[in-house]
Amino acid sequence: MENHEYFLNEAIEEAKKGLSEGGIPIGSVIVHNGKIIGRGHNRRVQKGSVILHGEMDALENAGRLSASVYRECTIYTTLSPCPMCSGAIRLYGIPKVVIGENKTFLGDEKLLNESGIETILMNNSNCISLMEKFISEKPTLWNEDIGE
Amino acid sequence: MENHEYFLNEAIEEAKKGLSEGGIPIGSVIVHNGKIIGRGHNRRVQKGSVILHGEMDALENAGRLSASVYRECTIYTTLSPCPMCSGAIRLYGIPKVVIGENKTFLGDEKLLNESGIETILMNNSNCISLMEKFISEKPTLWNEDIGE
Repeated sequence: MENHEYFLNEAIEEAKKGLSEGGIPIGSVIVHNGKIIGRGHNRRVQKGSVILHGEMDALENAGRLSASVYRECTIYTTLSPCPMCSGAIRLYGIPKVVIGENKTFLGDEKLLNESGIETILMNNSNCISLMEKFISEKPTLWNEDIGE
Repeated sequence: MENHEYFLNEAIEEAKKGLSEGGIPIGSVIVHNGKIIGRGHNRRVQKGSVILHGEMDALENAGRLSASVYRECTIYTTLSPCPMCSGAIRLYGIPKVVIGENKTFLGDEKLLNESGIETILMNNSNCISLMEKFISEKPTLWNEDIGE
């Protein structure tokens, strides 16, 4: 049985960890057969990284996996995945993406769907308020993170 | 004046460096105002990384830049950029991609073009032979890198 609420909450924990480190509050977990095999959060500030968005950090922390494993995974992310993260999801053929919210930022959901990837939007109020507060407090940092 | 041949050769040097480290021979450089501001190569093997494709490594090594800089850059890559790298290029709005070859792997060139990004295909024989030799010698590693 899938428990999207439970795993999304784990992604939110990652987002909060990022915020407590002075970073951008976006988190992600990757689930395989009901178990978290990778988790991470945006580390732009913490590592001076332009590629470690939340989903990318979770993918990296999951380590090198074969295509057959990715194809049985679900990735949870607190925020609608940007073109880079959506591209990584498409590259590795992760078939399902559970999205905390897309109110503060709309990523490549349409492209994911066109690529045959299922997206499930949770409209989670914790995810929305984390990002709304962050964007209003640090708009310049946020714009940097989305290339604007 | 643009000198695509010169900068593509720098990307090929990166690819060769990767190969000499036991890695996958794909390299990339990012050029701004005629100067290389980031260079890198695929580090799947070297760092156990699933996100450090050549273009991603070059982006990471260029460091945190503002959108206005990315929008004046050209990225050179020895191989047609995969969905992840194409997504990163789209995220940051890099307007031009010079591609060594797309004979051994065709990435998201169409999507780049549809996003208003110019692609220039060099059909470079050194790039082709580097990849043909690598793929024939290590097909399993190559398939892992492209999620197959």
